[in-house]
Amino acid sequence: MRNWILPEYISDVLPREARQIEAMRRGLLDLFSRYGYELVMPPLVEYVESLFLHDDPALDLKTFKLVDEMTGRQMGLRADITPQVARIDAHILNRQGVARLCYSGSVVSTRPDGILSTREPRQIGAEIYGCADVAADVEVIELMFESLAFAGLKNARLDVGHIGLFHALADAAGMKGDLRDQTFSALQQKDLPTLCELSAGLDPAIAAGLQALPALYGGYDVLARARAAMPPLAGVNAALAALETLFAALKMRGIAVRFDLAEVRSSDYHTGLVFAAYANGFANAVARGGRYDSVGEKFGRSRPATGFSLDMRELSRLPFPETAAAILAPAGDDAELIAAVRRLRDAGETVIVDLGVKPEEVAVNRRLVLKGGQWQVDPLV
Amino acid sequence: MRNWILPEYISDVLPREARQIEAMRRGLLDLFSRYGYELVMPPLVEYVESLFLHDDPALDLKTFKLVDEMTGRQMGLRADITPQVARIDAHILNRQGVARLCYSGSVVSTRPDGILSTREPRQIGAEIYGCADVAADVEVIELMFESLAFAGLKNARLDVGHIGLFHALADAAGMKGDLRDQTFSALQQKDLPTLCELSAGLDPAIAAGLQALPALYGGYDVLARARAAMPPLAGVNAALAALETLFAALKMRGIAVRFDLAEVRSSDYHTGLVFAAYANGFANAVARGGRYDSVGEKFGRSRPATGFSLDMRELSRLPFPETAAAILAPAGDDAELIAAVRRLRDAGETVIVDLGVKPEEVAVNRRLVLKGGQWQVDPLV
Repeated sequence: MRNWILPEYISDVLPREARQIEAMRRGLLDLFSRYGYELVMPPLVEYVESLFLHDDPALDLKTFKLVDEMTGRQMGLRADITPQVARIDAHILNRQGVARLCYSGSVVSTRPDGILSTREPRQIGAEIYGCADVAADVEVIELMFESLAFAGLKNARLDVGHIGLFHALADAAGMKGDLRDQTFSALQQKDLPTLCELSAGLDPAIAAGLQALPALYGGYDVLARARAAMPPLAGVNAALAALETLFAALKMRGIAVRFDLAEVRSSDYHTGLVFAAYANGFANAVARGGRYDSVGEKFGRSRPATGFSLDMRELSRLPFPETAAAILAPAGDDAELIAAVRRLRDAGETVIVDLGVKPEEVAVNRRLVLKGGQWQVDPLV
Repeated sequence: MRNWILPEYISDVLPREARQIEAMRRGLLDLFSRYGYELVMPPLVEYVESLFLHDDPALDLKTFKLVDEMTGRQMGLRADITPQVARIDAHILNRQGVARLCYSGSVVSTRPDGILSTREPRQIGAEIYGCADVAADVEVIELMFESLAFAGLKNARLDVGHIGLFHALADAAGMKGDLRDQTFSALQQKDLPTLCELSAGLDPAIAAGLQALPALYGGYDVLARARAAMPPLAGVNAALAALETLFAALKMRGIAVRFDLAEVRSSDYHTGLVFAAYANGFANAVARGGRYDSVGEKFGRSRPATGFSLDMRELSRLPFPETAAAILAPAGDDAELIAAVRRLRDAGETVIVDLGVKPEEVAVNRRLVLKGGQWQVDPLV
């Protein structure tokens, strides 16, 4: 009798929310299509090692494992779709030029990201492969903002960071292994005391650069402050130049950038620019993404890549249009009745055959009645 | 380097097929909506005991098992969606009247159904709860045929059986346990010698009825032949009356019925009328369904139910419309260019920003060019 209880953080999507998610899914896929993104549908399960772009302990922990009876090998239920799309770009499509791919589907995690999260987000996203230029990031961010606007979020805010800053500093300091991981983690948590402690023994200019990152937060002036605070390493200069270009290009598109140079909270596979959109009333980012260049390497082909994704269940809290009201028709096998119902449905009307009690959730405002030998639609009184 | 290899009978859906499946999904969900079916989205994973409507060893074997780290309980990756929708009707929605529900999503099986099958069918289906009348089956079959017609199969054929015939005979003979299972299985395989052997010790009228079933195959005359060959049990009479009513009602809707009274090959949870649609060029049924009354019992509420489902990947072999040709636009941050691209996309055009090489699969037949200070669309030469 308790068989109807669902696991924690797993839930059914009932008609009202399902209607909303379906409308959002269609609208966003149509939007992606108008930008030239092609839809792919990777499988829900595959060999577990194909589900990660590189050693990715965080994603590994989130991934449910299953045994393939046909081979005895371990498979995983996907907890993210981006690595699958990278695999498709790298190996299956094998295109020489730019590939724009998009997807929509459930992912499942062993644990929720937070106490308000679900273990089955309905992920939708878009990715560009084969273009290392900031123009690709600009397009992806513009598309992300148009997606949010379509979903009803007209005033989302954009945070941008660049993981290349950390890596340039860490490389110059020769940081490796645990020290590097711990420093990255301290930066992720904006834990300045730990960051200072871990960088204490490094070259002073590099230590100063690392310690400056958490405070490099705000508008355009952040770039000048970063140039002053950072050692002039090639990787640092390249990252700051990319951020400068991005700022200008997004400004032309009406999108304001807020820099957060300690923003390294994205997925483990990100390698350069990272970004996230925030909105009032939502505790977490409503969409996020970034660069993950070279990750196709694991699948035999290294390609620059950038993309974004969002969880449609998170956004389904937003209001969305209701369905049109329906016509109630009597049950029966009369040829004229059957033809009348068919005509109405072909014209796009919802016609519900009365098989007992009238439906509770679909609004019915008219009925099909026989008058003077003709079936006609009357208001429901 | 072999990380791109997918498990057997698991595959990516690439752009061409994905476009087709997405178009089919939308068209069918819209069709279901015009009949008043409401969309639900059950989760991909839940506690394994909720995934079966009763002890269902066949479905159990097909279901991948996973461990819920949060509770230590066993979960399953769904291999069918109908039991989940029955759970939603029985417990979550808890409506008193008729509920019409539909769904679309992947299911995953531990093994493929056949050597040409996939382990991840993309199931779409519709169900009516709360109506025991044949009128509900008529509606579901009509909807199934309209669905197949939308997918391009205008000449599908309908096979109809009734599992109540076997159960009425077996009940009257007091058949139980292994003998009943073996007899059912022999009937399923139309294995007449075994059927004769197993029914040899039964009441001669019942044995004759069971042995007659495999030959009761064909058009309307099958009903008269069945009445002559079957003992006049209440369950037999009710089943034959339902088949008679169904035949007449479907005839009025232009759907021809071919009876197959030994057709018991549907899912283990079916209890009454069962049906399947076949089409030229497809080895297996292209859609199937039937009655599964009272199965909500497990979830605390017994309701009559009938429905159908089909695998969109199977039908995606059919031709489907291509996408419209796109416009290629130069990359750049010029305000007029940005505005021109936006206007074209708002008007429904696909505009692809040139980030290097032109796309390989999306057809491009025009380009956006600057002429006399104005951005305009020119044919691509």
